[in-house]
Amino acid sequence: MSGVFITFEGIDQAGKSTQIEKLVKRLKKEYPDREIVQSFEPGATELGAKLRNIILHEDAISAHAELLLYLADRAENVNKVLVPALSRGCIVISDRYIDSTVAYQCSGRVLDRSTVLTMTNFATSGLLPDLTILLDITVEESKKRLLGLNADRLEQENNEFFEQVRSGYLKIAHDEKRVHVFDAMADIDKLSEDIYEVVSSVMV
Amino acid sequence: MSGVFITFEGIDQAGKSTQIEKLVKRLKKEYPDREIVQSFEPGATELGAKLRNIILHEDAISAHAELLLYLADRAENVNKVLVPALSRGCIVISDRYIDSTVAYQCSGRVLDRSTVLTMTNFATSGLLPDLTILLDITVEESKKRLLGLNADRLEQENNEFFEQVRSGYLKIAHDEKRVHVFDAMADIDKLSEDIYEVVSSVMV
Repeated sequence: MSGVFITFEGIDQAGKSTQIEKLVKRLKKEYPDREIVQSFEPGATELGAKLRNIILHEDAISAHAELLLYLADRAENVNKVLVPALSRGCIVISDRYIDSTVAYQCSGRVLDRSTVLTMTNFATSGLLPDLTILLDITVEESKKRLLGLNADRLEQENNEFFEQVRSGYLKIAHDEKRVHVFDAMADIDKLSEDIYEVVSSVMV
Repeated sequence: MSGVFITFEGIDQAGKSTQIEKLVKRLKKEYPDREIVQSFEPGATELGAKLRNIILHEDAISAHAELLLYLADRAENVNKVLVPALSRGCIVISDRYIDSTVAYQCSGRVLDRSTVLTMTNFATSGLLPDLTILLDITVEESKKRLLGLNADRLEQENNEFFEQVRSGYLKIAHDEKRVHVFDAMADIDKLSEDIYEVVSSVMV
């Protein structure tokens, strides 16, 4: 694979979309000849879009089934989009990837970590990001930013759940060198500069 | 769990539905006070029905994603239907269960067996059948019986695929005591009698 694979992670309202948009704009300017592929989870493929709709709107799916649906979405995306793009040398940027599974499903819902990792590895055929940008935000700030927006099922989970997810993310960042933590409450443009600096360091 | 869990397995057209129907009729006669729950895969739950529709009609799903969808369907069914039914003492009869995964996905599509078993175990939380009836039929006979019927995507796979699936099933039967093999080309009523004899032996 000759491409570069960058993922963005964080709880809702951390500003992932904004920062991805800014990063893509900057990369297009700095690397005008490189193809940039933007992806996201869940729902980037035709199959994934159907699964996303089910995950977000079906009531009371069992925790095990929910995890398997996220993994099916990812497996399809890896196979149909990410691997082909990386093989042809693209810069691939994904809004959420494997760390979301561990943070949301293991920390948040207390599923067995090693089994989840085995399954995640199956879904991705072992494809890891070169760099992961973790936008860290307090649960309070996330809720404040959400105020007034429509909340879907996942966003209606309680604060304790999101505290566990946030801790789960920080634990991953502690364990995995590829993960860089950024304070998502910082000034948007300053944050964007800081992210670009780290991104530059992994560009090939 | 005080119930009895019986699964039926075999390639298409082996006669699973017919034999399940006969078994249920007989059990109702012999155990008029027991609740009997019939299940099937994929698609027995509300979530499962949506996934079944996707699996059978979406073109070219990657092998990894397909397996994960079957497991999501099963996880939901175990959680919402099978475990509650077994807990209240029912006789539960399922048309397909874990052996379908190993036979179709490992043998047929050459996915790694131990990973698939880990994931199957996750999806079922370790729930195994007390008895599995494997209806064994040659691929030729299966095709002959199918003639004239509408074939969906799975049924249009080639003969070699089904030969591998059949062998996969026979290997499981060789390894697992709970699996009993029956010649599905035998006389329907004689077969039904033979199946009932084995079922009687596991009734509690």
